[in-house]
Amino acid sequence: MPTYKAPVDDVLFLLNDVFSIDRYNNLPGFADASSDVVEAILGEAAKFCEEVLTPLNRVGDVEGCTRADDGAVTTPKGFKEAFAKLVEGGWVGISAPEEFGGQGLPETLTATIGEFLASANMAFAMYPGLTQGAIAALLLHGTPEQKKTYLPKMIEGRWTGTMNLTEPHCGTDLGLLRTKAVKQGDGRYKIDGTKIFISAGEHDLAENIVHLVLARVEGAVAGIKGLSLFIVPKFLVNADGSAGARNGVTCGSIEEKMGIHGNATCVMNYDGATGFLIGEENRGINAMFTMMNEARLGVGVQGLAQSEVAYQNAVNYAKERLQGRALSGAKYPNKPADPIIVHPDVRRTLMSIKAFNEAGRALVMWAALSGDIARRSGDDKERKAADEHMGLLTPVIKGVLTDQGFANTVMAQQMYGGHGYIAEHGMEQFVRDARIAMIYEGANGIQALDLVGRKLPKDGGKAVMAFFNEVQGFITENAKDADMKPFVDPLNKALADLQGATMWFMQNALGRPDNAGAGATDYMHMFGLVALGYMWCRMVKAARAKLKAGANGATDRMNAKLITARFFMERMLPETGAQLARIKSGADVVMELPDAAF
Amino acid sequence: MPTYKAPVDDVLFLLNDVFSIDRYNNLPGFADASSDVVEAILGEAAKFCEEVLTPLNRVGDVEGCTRADDGAVTTPKGFKEAFAKLVEGGWVGISAPEEFGGQGLPETLTATIGEFLASANMAFAMYPGLTQGAIAALLLHGTPEQKKTYLPKMIEGRWTGTMNLTEPHCGTDLGLLRTKAVKQGDGRYKIDGTKIFISAGEHDLAENIVHLVLARVEGAVAGIKGLSLFIVPKFLVNADGSAGARNGVTCGSIEEKMGIHGNATCVMNYDGATGFLIGEENRGINAMFTMMNEARLGVGVQGLAQSEVAYQNAVNYAKERLQGRALSGAKYPNKPADPIIVHPDVRRTLMSIKAFNEAGRALVMWAALSGDIARRSGDDKERKAADEHMGLLTPVIKGVLTDQGFANTVMAQQMYGGHGYIAEHGMEQFVRDARIAMIYEGANGIQALDLVGRKLPKDGGKAVMAFFNEVQGFITENAKDADMKPFVDPLNKALADLQGATMWFMQNALGRPDNAGAGATDYMHMFGLVALGYMWCRMVKAARAKLKAGANGATDRMNAKLITARFFMERMLPETGAQLARIKSGADVVMELPDAAF
Repeated sequence: MPTYKAPVDDVLFLLNDVFSIDRYNNLPGFADASSDVVEAILGEAAKFCEEVLTPLNRVGDVEGCTRADDGAVTTPKGFKEAFAKLVEGGWVGISAPEEFGGQGLPETLTATIGEFLASANMAFAMYPGLTQGAIAALLLHGTPEQKKTYLPKMIEGRWTGTMNLTEPHCGTDLGLLRTKAVKQGDGRYKIDGTKIFISAGEHDLAENIVHLVLARVEGAVAGIKGLSLFIVPKFLVNADGSAGARNGVTCGSIEEKMGIHGNATCVMNYDGATGFLIGEENRGINAMFTMMNEARLGVGVQGLAQSEVAYQNAVNYAKERLQGRALSGAKYPNKPADPIIVHPDVRRTLMSIKAFNEAGRALVMWAALSGDIARRSGDDKERKAADEHMGLLTPVIKGVLTDQGFANTVMAQQMYGGHGYIAEHGMEQFVRDARIAMIYEGANGIQALDLVGRKLPKDGGKAVMAFFNEVQGFITENAKDADMKPFVDPLNKALADLQGATMWFMQNALGRPDNAGAGATDYMHMFGLVALGYMWCRMVKAARAKLKAGANGATDRMNAKLITARFFMERMLPETGAQLARIKSGADVVMELPDAAF
Repeated sequence: MPTYKAPVDDVLFLLNDVFSIDRYNNLPGFADASSDVVEAILGEAAKFCEEVLTPLNRVGDVEGCTRADDGAVTTPKGFKEAFAKLVEGGWVGISAPEEFGGQGLPETLTATIGEFLASANMAFAMYPGLTQGAIAALLLHGTPEQKKTYLPKMIEGRWTGTMNLTEPHCGTDLGLLRTKAVKQGDGRYKIDGTKIFISAGEHDLAENIVHLVLARVEGAVAGIKGLSLFIVPKFLVNADGSAGARNGVTCGSIEEKMGIHGNATCVMNYDGATGFLIGEENRGINAMFTMMNEARLGVGVQGLAQSEVAYQNAVNYAKERLQGRALSGAKYPNKPADPIIVHPDVRRTLMSIKAFNEAGRALVMWAALSGDIARRSGDDKERKAADEHMGLLTPVIKGVLTDQGFANTVMAQQMYGGHGYIAEHGMEQFVRDARIAMIYEGANGIQALDLVGRKLPKDGGKAVMAFFNEVQGFITENAKDADMKPFVDPLNKALADLQGATMWFMQNALGRPDNAGAGATDYMHMFGLVALGYMWCRMVKAARAKLKAGANGATDRMNAKLITARFFMERMLPETGAQLARIKSGADVVMELPDAAF
């Protein structure tokens, strides 16, 4: 049975030492998040995840969700009780506005706790996770009346939310969407259509489910410019705010899928369901993107989270499994064999995961802090810059953290040898669960295109220039520090590769977009490496400062940061050279092969 | 439901044009394998795989194997009938010696058909696949009596074979093995112990199962030098050759695992079972390696096979799935959207798999031809050189073809978007099935160590020097040919990287083996890239010759070879630079992190 220990110490190091969160005390909610408060909250979240959710992870995988003939869905044993505890702990609404019953604490905390939840039990964590996305969309686009009706219950956790976009014939290309909305005399809409792959679409955890549904109003234009977003509650809401009559939306079936069995992935049938327009007609795609961006960050965190829990278990196994002897001679001669952690190839594998996880966690926090600034700062310019920074990092976090997060679960499973392939050890579940994160909320190829085709050129490249300037500024500032040199030098080289690739796109992709398409995935991963490399440099700087100040019991942890950072610089960051070469090879050969020759 | 079409044309191109198999007509069995005969055999094998085995692949996954209380195991519906057809077709023994009822045809054919079988139904193909390994061990190490008793039935396919090595506490480190053998008065042995992860350990497909079991004779020394190999038949064989009394070996349970559900992975209990020694006492590890090497090549082929079938389905889907428009403008304006194969990122993904599969198939054939020479040549020196060449390529084929084969199934699944995660499309099964190939018959980290620690230094590096000489010779011979230059130049650069890494090991790993351990996996993959690059150069040369000669209906296929080869050179081979940098970073940082800091 796999175990999990939430990385609270690492989070506190990032919050306090790397990002100095108290610098943000001018933002609403941040002053309340004093170091002590944060530590207490993280400790409680860790406890809930480790003790309640972790043991349910395999239960959820084995049992899955079951649908009764009437469309009702039962979640795995123990999920209901765990969800009640989640609600009781107020975990859904810790960052939500106080006016709707939230605690108003930084989003950064929610992102962090999101990692703990998704490490402990990814399938379970999706129920509140999707609710967060729906809350964000309602906050930004809902009418005051809609907010009042839905938000308090959702923030409390008694009602959950979903996103309904995909249809059998359309996923990425939402312009093909067919679900129909017909305006009724009372301003309501009748919704008809079928949605597929709806996570948490139906279940027994909440009193009501608030579906946000993308549909086309009768007579609207074809394509994405004719799409509108609707609230379709499972139960219509009574005047007193309670859940009332059953609406015309039902779960038609539950998909049989590779993993996340504990989450009900539903085919949802809308048969004359009553819907309420969010925002304006034909502007649904905007509100949808609010949800989607929220969800993309969350999915990136899932990749990190599965990588982390798989890593922890692989480390435990590598320390326990006795097999063979160290190449340099027995390390534990009194044992029948050495633990496999003595082997360089095992250490190399584990260190790649560790080096990725710790920098990935920092990257998520950096983006989440930008999210907080974008939502809470009183300064327009600062808010806009932060929003663009987060927009730039979102596809990188989604794409890179899930691609590599998945690859890491595979590497962690490999440490178990044959035992990793057997279900009872739980390692293969991490692989199966992590796999979906590369796919949903925009497959990673789409993330790469979003980065290259939309985020790079936006506003004349403002966001990416700001990113380059920040990283370059850090390098320049620290270039003469002998202690920092082994870290900023490789970063400088990698940044030059990334800038070279960016320049190459500017020169070669404007006239021929295929040149961008053919290099997009490599570019996304290259961007990820540079961003992670920058995070490592900042962590090294903070670790050195902490060590100089006495480290206060954290000496070993801070020294480990320095070693892990060196590993990243020597073994992971140099990949940017090969990526640049591939990008510069362009689209010619890729486009030349006739379709029939594949 | 996934489909499969065996790549018969590609195999014929390799056999006839690239490797000119008729050059080997001096070897026993090769003259019988005329071009027509081979084409007919491959056509029949293809038909059996496509029509009988492919439709059973998902059945096997869904049903799995079931064990009755008495230890009997039932295979999935249809497996028994399919196995009867396999036996009827004589597919198990096509390369086995005629004196034991085989057809004596080249092993190369068996390896090729092995790919078809493993693409169509990997779990099914393991039943005859493991039998091949047991046949090889008996042929080389069995007494004339043992050969007479077991081989004809196994070669016919009426009896199957297994390998019994792993125990709960020992996998890689067989020296820890505890299964006990006690010599009886009659020269037989009593075997007691428990083996785990025994593929095809018990089933209802054959009249008898011939277990080859590694055990320690009472009183033998500890470690691998005290191991002996035994034949333990499920049913003891009567004097007339028929299966007689039930032996004391039973299936204790079937493992629940990530994939290959159609194959029974058994815990095998030996309770005073009667065993017959193969070869000498305490020399079991040698006989075991015969089986193991056979099996390792077979497992490499599984990686390739899953990559191929996943690729084929991904291509079909990419041509059918309409979603979005080409970046350069609509390609099919009369359809609601373009098929996704218009997108550069989709094409890039599919071409990486294609470029890998076609070169991987060539590499397997190159090694299999060496295997044939090693077994059949009348020239001692030639036989020894071929054996060493195959020994050098075995860990590369096992490690690289399964690591990348698995990664390719993941990429192919990705092409389906959300639909790839749903069981009914079968793409996620390819991923789950392919995953085991990275683990069993020596996890890939062990393959890398075998390559670097054993195969490289063997006989003063004779085999690797021969490999370098052959590749360098080809480069030199073709360097001035303008048509070949775009292919041999990148190969030359990659070869230099590989030679640089080899040199670095010679200078830095003799005194400090950890330096080899820390770079072993990168070295194995680098070796794989160079070997695949060399295969591409040879295929390009053959394709150009064929095009010059008129190509005889194969013009499109040969042109596709040239384009795919360029893709490999531009996009895949340059990775050797990053691998070399990682190898040269050495073991320092990897060994420095204290165990407690992981």
